[in-house]
Amino acid sequence: MAIKIYGSFRSPFVMAVALAVYEKEQEFELLMMNIKSPEYMNNFNPFGKIPSYQDEDITLFESRAIMRYVATKFEGQGAPLLGSTFSEQALCNQWLEVNGHSFTPAIVEMAFSKADTESSKLAFEKFEKVLDVYEARLSVSKYLAGDSYTLADLAHTPLFHIFMAVSDDEKKKCLTSRPHLHAWIQDISSRPAWKKVTERPENTFYKPRTESQ
Amino acid sequence: MAIKIYGSFRSPFVMAVALAVYEKEQEFELLMMNIKSPEYMNNFNPFGKIPSYQDEDITLFESRAIMRYVATKFEGQGAPLLGSTFSEQALCNQWLEVNGHSFTPAIVEMAFSKADTESSKLAFEKFEKVLDVYEARLSVSKYLAGDSYTLADLAHTPLFHIFMAVSDDEKKKCLTSRPHLHAWIQDISSRPAWKKVTERPENTFYKPRTESQ
Repeated sequence: MAIKIYGSFRSPFVMAVALAVYEKEQEFELLMMNIKSPEYMNNFNPFGKIPSYQDEDITLFESRAIMRYVATKFEGQGAPLLGSTFSEQALCNQWLEVNGHSFTPAIVEMAFSKADTESSKLAFEKFEKVLDVYEARLSVSKYLAGDSYTLADLAHTPLFHIFMAVSDDEKKKCLTSRPHLHAWIQDISSRPAWKKVTERPENTFYKPRTESQ
Repeated sequence: MAIKIYGSFRSPFVMAVALAVYEKEQEFELLMMNIKSPEYMNNFNPFGKIPSYQDEDITLFESRAIMRYVATKFEGQGAPLLGSTFSEQALCNQWLEVNGHSFTPAIVEMAFSKADTESSKLAFEKFEKVLDVYEARLSVSKYLAGDSYTLADLAHTPLFHIFMAVSDDEKKKCLTSRPHLHAWIQDISSRPAWKKVTERPENTFYKPRTESQ
Protein backbone atom coordinates (compact mmCIF):
# COMPACT_ATOMS: atom_id res chain seq x y z
CA MET A 1 0.00 0.00 0.00
CA ALA A 2 1.27 3.44 -0.90
CA ILE A 3 1.56 6.03 1.82
CA LYS A 4 -1.68 7.93 2.32
CA ILE A 5 -1.86 11.28 4.03
CA TYR A 6 -5.31 12.50 5.03
CA GLY A 7 -5.72 16.25 5.12
CA SER A 8 -5.34 19.43 3.14
CA PHE A 9 -2.34 21.61 2.39
CA ARG A 10 -4.19 24.43 4.09
CA SER A 11 -2.76 22.88 7.29
CA PRO A 12 0.93 23.45 8.09
CA PHE A 13 0.93 20.12 9.92
CA VAL A 14 -0.17 18.25 6.80
CA MET A 15 2.55 20.03 4.84
CA ALA A 16 5.12 19.06 7.49
CA VAL A 17 4.22 15.38 7.19
CA ALA A 18 4.37 15.61 3.38
CA LEU A 19 7.77 17.25 3.66
CA ALA A 20 9.07 14.48 5.92
CA VAL A 21 7.86 11.84 3.45
CA TYR A 22 9.59 13.63 0.55
CA GLU A 23 12.79 14.08 2.57
CA LYS A 24 12.82 10.28 2.90
CA GLU A 25 12.36 9.95 -0.88
CA GLN A 26 8.93 8.35 -0.60
CA GLU A 27 5.74 9.18 -2.48
CA PHE A 28 2.27 9.67 -1.04
CA GLU A 29 -1.36 10.19 -1.96
CA LEU A 30 -3.13 13.15 -0.39
CA LEU A 31 -6.73 12.34 0.49
CA MET A 32 -9.46 14.24 2.22
CA MET A 33 -12.39 12.89 4.18
CA ASN A 34 -15.05 14.52 6.30
CA ILE A 35 -12.95 14.63 9.46
CA LYS A 36 -15.98 14.80 11.73
CA SER A 37 -17.57 11.72 10.15
CA PRO A 38 -17.74 8.50 12.20
CA GLU A 39 -15.76 6.77 9.45
CA TYR A 40 -12.83 9.17 9.85
CA MET A 41 -13.00 9.42 13.64
CA ASN A 42 -13.28 5.66 14.13
CA ASN A 43 -10.61 4.66 11.65
CA PHE A 44 -8.12 7.50 11.53
CA ASN A 45 -8.26 10.06 14.29
CA PRO A 46 -10.75 9.99 17.17
CA PHE A 47 -10.16 13.72 17.72
CA GLY A 48 -11.34 14.53 14.17
CA LYS A 49 -8.22 16.44 13.16
CA ILE A 50 -5.73 16.33 10.32
CA PRO A 51 -3.26 14.97 9.35
CA SER A 52 -3.64 11.23 9.61
CA TYR A 53 -1.23 8.81 8.00
CA GLN A 54 -1.61 5.29 6.72
CA ASP A 55 0.74 2.75 5.17
CA GLU A 56 0.79 -1.05 5.03
CA ASP A 57 1.94 -1.25 8.66
CA ILE A 58 0.14 1.42 10.62
CA THR A 59 -2.52 4.11 10.88
CA LEU A 60 -1.31 7.10 12.86
CA PHE A 61 -2.28 10.66 13.78
CA GLU A 62 -0.49 13.67 15.35
CA SER A 63 1.93 15.23 12.88
CA ARG A 64 5.07 15.06 15.03
CA ALA A 65 4.44 11.38 15.81
CA ILE A 66 3.95 10.70 12.09
CA MET A 67 7.16 12.55 11.22
CA ARG A 68 9.11 10.51 13.80
CA TYR A 69 7.63 7.31 12.41
CA VAL A 70 8.53 8.19 8.82
CA ALA A 71 12.03 9.29 9.84
CA THR A 72 12.60 6.01 11.69
CA LYS A 73 10.96 3.67 9.19
CA PHE A 74 12.97 5.02 6.24
CA GLU A 75 16.10 5.66 8.30
CA GLY A 76 18.51 4.62 5.56
CA GLN A 77 16.90 6.66 2.78
CA GLY A 78 17.07 10.35 1.99
CA ALA A 79 18.08 12.88 4.62
CA PRO A 80 18.72 11.59 8.14
CA LEU A 81 16.22 13.55 10.18
CA LEU A 82 16.74 12.39 13.76
CA GLY A 83 20.17 13.80 14.57
CA SER A 84 23.52 12.15 13.98
CA THR A 85 24.70 11.97 17.60
CA PHE A 86 22.95 11.11 20.86
CA SER A 87 23.12 14.75 21.88
CA GLU A 88 21.64 15.90 18.54
CA GLN A 89 18.80 13.40 18.95
CA ALA A 90 18.00 14.83 22.38
CA LEU A 91 18.15 18.41 21.10
CA CYS A 92 16.02 17.46 18.09
CA ASN A 93 13.37 16.26 20.56
CA GLN A 94 13.76 19.40 22.65
CA TRP A 95 13.29 21.77 19.70
CA LEU A 96 10.39 19.73 18.33
CA GLU A 97 8.67 20.37 21.67
CA VAL A 98 9.56 24.06 21.43
CA ASN A 99 8.03 24.01 17.96
CA GLY A 100 4.83 22.53 19.33
CA HIS A 101 4.44 24.47 22.55
CA SER A 102 6.12 27.87 22.02
CA PHE A 103 6.75 28.57 18.35
CA THR A 104 3.55 27.34 16.69
CA PRO A 105 1.05 29.12 18.97
CA ALA A 106 3.10 32.35 18.74
CA ILE A 107 3.47 32.43 14.95
CA VAL A 108 -0.16 31.43 14.31
CA GLU A 109 -1.41 34.13 16.67
CA MET A 110 0.91 36.65 15.05
CA ALA A 111 0.12 35.67 11.45
CA PHE A 112 -3.63 36.00 11.87
CA SER A 113 -3.83 38.94 14.31
CA LYS A 114 -5.54 42.07 13.03
CA ALA A 115 -3.15 45.00 12.62
CA ASP A 116 -2.99 47.76 15.24
CA THR A 117 -5.07 46.11 17.93
CA GLU A 118 -4.11 45.51 21.54
CA SER A 119 -4.08 41.77 20.93
CA SER A 120 -1.85 42.14 17.87
CA LYS A 121 0.61 44.15 19.96
CA LEU A 122 0.72 41.39 22.58
CA ALA A 123 1.02 38.71 19.89
CA PHE A 124 3.91 40.63 18.34
CA GLU A 125 5.76 40.98 21.66
CA LYS A 126 5.31 37.28 22.43
CA PHE A 127 6.49 36.27 18.96
CA GLU A 128 9.54 38.54 19.16
CA LYS A 129 10.59 36.92 22.44
CA VAL A 130 10.39 33.48 20.87
CA LEU A 131 12.35 34.68 17.83
CA ASP A 132 15.07 36.10 20.08
CA VAL A 133 15.59 32.62 21.49
CA TYR A 134 15.88 31.22 17.95
CA GLU A 135 18.29 33.96 16.87
CA ALA A 136 20.52 33.20 19.87
CA ARG A 137 20.44 29.48 19.19
CA LEU A 138 21.08 29.84 15.46
CA SER A 139 24.00 32.22 16.05
CA VAL A 140 25.92 29.32 17.65
CA SER A 141 24.47 26.35 15.76
CA LYS A 142 23.77 25.84 12.06
CA TYR A 143 20.54 23.96 12.77
CA LEU A 144 18.38 23.79 15.89
CA ALA A 145 19.72 20.42 17.05
CA GLY A 146 23.33 20.94 15.93
CA ASP A 147 25.22 20.50 12.66
CA SER A 148 22.53 18.42 10.94
CA TYR A 149 19.13 19.28 9.55
CA THR A 150 16.53 17.36 11.58
CA LEU A 151 12.79 17.09 12.14
CA ALA A 152 13.15 20.02 14.53
CA ASP A 153 14.01 22.30 11.61
CA LEU A 154 11.61 20.61 9.22
CA ALA A 155 8.60 21.23 11.46
CA HIS A 156 9.10 25.00 11.08
CA THR A 157 9.21 25.28 7.29
CA PRO A 158 5.45 25.22 6.55
CA LEU A 159 4.72 27.69 9.34
CA PHE A 160 7.21 30.22 7.96
CA HIS A 161 5.76 29.63 4.48
CA ILE A 162 2.26 30.51 5.66
CA PHE A 163 3.50 33.46 7.70
CA MET A 164 5.31 34.86 4.66
CA ALA A 165 2.26 34.39 2.46
CA VAL A 166 -0.20 36.17 4.75
CA SER A 167 2.07 38.96 6.07
CA ASP A 168 3.03 42.36 4.67
CA ASP A 169 6.65 43.54 4.58
CA GLU A 170 6.29 45.28 7.93
CA LYS A 171 5.27 42.06 9.66
CA LYS A 172 7.97 40.08 7.88
CA LYS A 173 10.64 42.37 9.32
CA CYS A 174 10.65 40.40 12.58
CA LEU A 175 12.11 37.53 10.57
CA THR A 176 14.31 39.40 8.11
CA SER A 177 15.86 41.66 10.78
CA ARG A 178 17.40 38.69 12.60
CA PRO A 179 20.32 37.58 10.42
CA HIS A 180 20.88 34.05 11.72
CA LEU A 181 17.20 33.29 11.84
CA HIS A 182 16.72 34.69 8.35
CA ALA A 183 19.59 32.67 6.88
CA TRP A 184 18.22 29.52 8.52
CA ILE A 185 14.72 30.10 7.12
CA GLN A 186 16.17 30.56 3.64
CA ASP A 187 18.26 27.42 4.07
CA ILE A 188 15.44 25.13 5.24
CA SER A 189 13.03 26.60 2.67
CA SER A 190 15.38 25.93 -0.24
CA ARG A 191 15.47 22.17 0.17
CA PRO A 192 14.33 20.14 -2.87
CA ALA A 193 11.85 18.18 -0.75
CA TRP A 194 10.12 21.41 0.27
CA LYS A 195 10.00 22.55 -3.37
CA LYS A 196 8.21 19.28 -4.17
CA VAL A 197 5.62 20.00 -1.48
CA THR A 198 4.95 23.52 -2.75
CA GLU A 199 4.65 22.24 -6.32
CA ARG A 200 2.04 19.59 -5.55
CA PRO A 201 -1.10 20.35 -7.58
CA GLU A 202 -3.20 20.29 -4.40
CA ASN A 203 -1.10 23.10 -2.95
CA THR A 204 -3.28 26.04 -3.92
CA PHE A 205 -3.16 27.99 -0.66
CA TYR A 206 -0.81 30.62 0.70
CA LYS A 207 0.68 32.03 -2.44
CA PRO A 208 3.34 34.73 -1.95
CA ARG A 209 1.87 38.22 -1.43
CA THR A 210 4.87 40.21 -2.65
CA GLU A 211 8.18 39.57 -4.33
CA SER A 212 10.21 41.08 -1.50
CA GLN A 213 10.20 38.07 0.79
CA MET B 1 27.71 14.30 38.05
CA ALA B 2 24.42 13.20 39.56
CA ILE B 3 21.23 13.95 37.66
CA LYS B 4 19.87 17.37 38.51
CA ILE B 5 16.27 18.38 37.90
CA TYR B 6 15.47 22.06 38.15
CA GLY B 7 11.95 22.86 39.22
CA SER B 8 9.31 22.28 41.87
CA PHE B 9 6.89 19.42 42.43
CA ARG B 10 4.11 21.96 42.09
CA SER B 11 4.57 21.33 38.33
CA PRO B 12 3.20 18.09 36.86
CA PHE B 13 5.92 18.27 34.23
CA VAL B 14 8.65 18.25 36.87
CA MET B 15 6.97 15.27 38.53
CA ALA B 16 6.79 13.47 35.18
CA VAL B 17 10.53 13.88 34.64
CA ALA B 18 11.23 12.69 38.20
CA LEU B 19 8.99 9.67 37.57
CA ALA B 20 10.86 8.78 34.38
CA VAL B 21 14.19 8.98 36.23
CA TYR B 22 12.89 6.71 39.00
CA GLU B 23 11.42 4.26 36.47
CA LYS B 24 14.96 3.94 35.10
CA GLU B 25 16.27 3.29 38.63
CA GLN B 26 18.31 6.47 38.76
CA GLU B 27 18.53 9.08 41.51
CA PHE B 28 18.32 12.83 41.17
CA GLU B 29 18.69 16.09 43.03
CA LEU B 30 15.78 18.53 42.83
CA LEU B 31 16.96 22.12 42.66
CA MET B 32 15.19 25.41 42.27
CA MET B 33 16.52 28.62 40.76
CA ASN B 34 14.93 31.93 39.88
CA ILE B 35 13.69 30.83 36.47
CA LYS B 36 13.50 34.38 35.16
CA SER B 37 17.12 35.13 36.14
CA PRO B 38 19.71 35.54 33.38
CA GLU B 39 21.68 32.70 35.00
CA TYR B 40 18.78 30.27 34.57
CA MET B 41 17.67 31.50 31.17
CA ASN B 42 21.20 31.54 29.73
CA ASN B 43 22.28 28.17 31.10
CA PHE B 44 19.16 26.06 31.41
CA ASN B 45 16.06 27.23 29.58
CA PRO B 46 15.87 30.41 27.48
CA PHE B 47 12.07 30.40 27.88
CA GLY B 48 12.35 30.61 31.69
CA LYS B 49 10.26 27.54 32.41
CA ILE B 50 10.61 24.34 34.41
CA PRO B 51 11.71 21.59 34.35
CA SER B 52 15.28 21.62 33.14
CA TYR B 53 17.56 18.63 33.36
CA GLN B 54 21.30 18.27 33.67
CA ASP B 55 23.69 15.34 33.83
CA GLU B 56 27.34 14.86 32.88
CA ASP B 57 26.47 14.76 29.18
CA ILE B 58 23.75 17.30 28.54
CA THR B 59 21.58 20.18 29.68
CA LEU B 60 18.03 19.90 28.39
CA PHE B 61 14.58 21.44 28.76
CA GLU B 62 11.01 20.49 27.73
CA SER B 63 9.71 17.64 29.87
CA ARG B 64 8.79 15.23 27.06
CA ALA B 65 12.22 15.67 25.45
CA ILE B 66 13.87 15.04 28.84
CA MET B 67 11.76 11.91 29.38
CA ARG B 68 12.72 10.56 25.95
CA TYR B 69 16.38 11.26 26.69
CA VAL B 70 16.27 9.49 30.06
CA ALA B 71 14.36 6.53 28.57
CA THR B 72 16.95 6.16 25.79
CA LYS B 73 20.07 6.79 27.87
CA PHE B 74 19.16 4.19 30.49
CA GLU B 75 17.51 1.85 28.00
CA GLY B 76 18.74 -1.34 29.68
CA GLN B 77 17.74 -0.35 33.21
CA GLY B 78 14.36 -0.38 34.94
CA ALA B 79 11.15 -0.32 32.95
CA PRO B 80 11.42 -0.08 29.17
CA LEU B 81 9.48 3.08 28.42
CA LEU B 82 9.64 3.47 24.66
CA GLY B 83 7.49 0.56 23.47
CA SER B 84 8.63 -2.98 22.74
CA THR B 85 7.72 -3.09 19.03
CA PHE B 86 8.06 -0.59 16.20
CA SER B 87 4.31 -0.09 16.23
CA GLU B 88 4.26 0.51 20.00
CA GLN B 89 7.04 3.06 19.60
CA ALA B 90 4.98 4.94 17.02
CA LEU B 91 1.86 4.80 19.17
CA CYS B 92 3.86 5.89 22.22
CA ASN B 93 4.86 8.98 20.24
CA GLN B 94 1.29 9.53 19.08
CA TRP B 95 -0.17 9.38 22.60
CA LEU B 96 2.61 11.56 24.00
CA GLU B 97 1.49 14.20 21.50
CA VAL B 98 -2.12 13.66 22.54
CA ASN B 99 -0.98 14.13 26.13
CA GLY B 100 0.67 17.43 25.22
CA HIS B 101 -1.89 18.91 22.88
CA SER B 102 -5.30 17.50 23.90
CA PHE B 103 -5.20 15.94 27.35
CA THR B 104 -3.08 18.39 29.32
CA PRO B 105 -4.88 21.60 28.31
CA ALA B 106 -8.27 19.93 28.93
CA ILE B 107 -7.49 18.51 32.39
CA VAL B 108 -5.76 21.67 33.59
CA GLU B 109 -8.70 23.82 32.47
CA MET B 110 -11.12 21.40 34.12
CA ALA B 111 -9.17 21.04 37.37
CA PHE B 112 -8.96 24.76 37.99
CA SER B 113 -12.31 25.92 36.60
CA LYS B 114 -14.70 27.53 39.07
CA ALA B 115 -17.80 25.44 39.70
CA ASP B 116 -21.11 26.29 38.00
CA THR B 117 -19.83 28.87 35.56
CA GLU B 118 -20.30 28.90 31.80
CA SER B 119 -16.56 28.33 31.32
CA SER B 120 -16.57 25.36 33.72
CA LYS B 121 -19.41 23.81 31.71
CA LEU B 122 -17.43 24.18 28.51
CA ALA B 123 -14.28 22.85 30.17
CA PHE B 124 -16.23 19.88 31.44
CA GLU B 125 -17.68 19.07 28.00
CA LYS B 126 -14.27 19.35 26.38
CA PHE B 127 -12.66 17.15 29.02
CA GLU B 128 -15.39 14.52 28.72
CA LYS B 129 -14.83 14.26 24.96
CA VAL B 130 -11.13 13.67 25.51
CA LEU B 131 -11.87 11.08 28.19
CA ASP B 132 -14.24 9.24 25.83
CA VAL B 133 -11.35 8.80 23.42
CA TYR B 134 -9.22 7.38 26.25
CA GLU B 135 -11.99 5.06 27.43
CA ALA B 136 -12.39 3.68 23.90
CA ARG B 137 -8.65 3.20 23.50
CA LEU B 138 -8.20 1.57 26.92
CA SER B 139 -11.10 -0.80 26.32
CA VAL B 140 -9.06 -2.47 23.57
CA SER B 141 -5.53 -1.93 24.84
CA LYS B 142 -4.02 -2.34 28.30
CA TYR B 143 -1.83 0.75 27.89
CA LEU B 144 -2.05 3.65 25.48
CA ALA B 145 0.64 2.36 23.13
CA GLY B 146 -0.19 -1.34 23.45
CA ASP B 147 0.69 -4.10 25.90
CA SER B 148 3.56 -2.23 27.57
CA TYR B 149 3.66 0.71 29.91
CA THR B 150 5.44 3.55 28.12
CA LEU B 151 6.22 7.25 28.43
CA ALA B 152 2.78 7.89 26.94
CA ASP B 153 1.15 6.48 30.09
CA LEU B 154 3.76 7.92 32.42
CA ALA B 155 3.17 11.50 31.25
CA HIS B 156 -0.43 11.31 32.53
CA THR B 157 0.19 10.16 36.11
CA PRO B 158 1.08 13.52 37.68
CA LEU B 159 -1.83 15.26 35.97
CA PHE B 160 -4.34 12.76 37.37
CA HIS B 161 -2.68 13.11 40.78
CA ILE B 162 -3.20 16.87 40.77
CA PHE B 163 -6.73 16.56 39.41
CA MET B 164 -7.64 14.11 42.18
CA ALA B 165 -6.13 16.37 44.83
CA VAL B 166 -7.95 19.54 43.81
CA SER B 167 -11.33 18.02 42.82
CA ASP B 168 -14.40 17.05 44.83
CA ASP B 169 -16.13 13.68 44.37
CA GLU B 170 -18.54 15.15 41.84
CA LYS B 171 -15.71 16.28 39.58
CA LYS B 172 -13.86 13.01 40.02
CA LYS B 173 -16.85 11.10 38.66
CA CYS B 174 -15.78 11.80 35.09
CA LEU B 175 -12.80 9.55 35.79
CA THR B 176 -14.36 6.95 38.07
CA SER B 177 -17.43 6.44 35.85
CA ARG B 178 -15.31 5.19 32.95
CA PRO B 179 -14.22 1.67 33.95
CA HIS B 180 -11.27 1.14 31.62
CA LEU B 181 -9.93 4.62 32.18
CA HIS B 182 -10.34 4.25 35.94
CA ALA B 183 -8.55 0.89 36.04
CA TRP B 184 -5.70 2.33 33.98
CA ILE B 185 -5.32 5.35 36.27
CA GLN B 186 -5.15 3.03 39.29
CA ASP B 187 -2.62 0.83 37.51
CA ILE B 188 -0.24 3.62 36.46
CA SER B 189 -0.61 5.35 39.85
CA SER B 190 0.34 2.23 41.80
CA ARG B 191 3.80 1.86 40.32
CA PRO B 192 6.66 1.89 42.88
CA ALA B 193 8.47 4.64 40.96
CA TRP B 194 5.45 6.93 41.33
CA LYS B 195 5.25 6.13 45.05
CA LYS B 196 8.87 7.29 45.32
CA VAL B 197 7.98 10.58 43.64
CA THR B 198 5.05 11.23 45.98
CA GLU B 199 7.19 10.38 49.01
CA ARG B 200 9.97 12.81 48.17
CA PRO B 201 10.28 15.29 51.04
CA GLU B 202 9.94 18.19 48.59
CA ASN B 203 6.55 16.88 47.51
CA THR B 204 4.35 19.00 49.76
CA PHE B 205 1.68 19.99 47.24
CA TYR B 206 -1.58 18.39 46.15
CA LYS B 207 -2.40 16.23 49.13
CA PRO B 208 -5.58 14.13 48.76
CA ARG B 209 -8.77 16.02 49.65
CA THR B 210 -10.87 13.01 50.55
CA GLU B 211 -10.37 9.29 51.03
CA SER B 212 -12.85 8.37 48.34
CA GLN B 213 -10.56 8.82 45.39
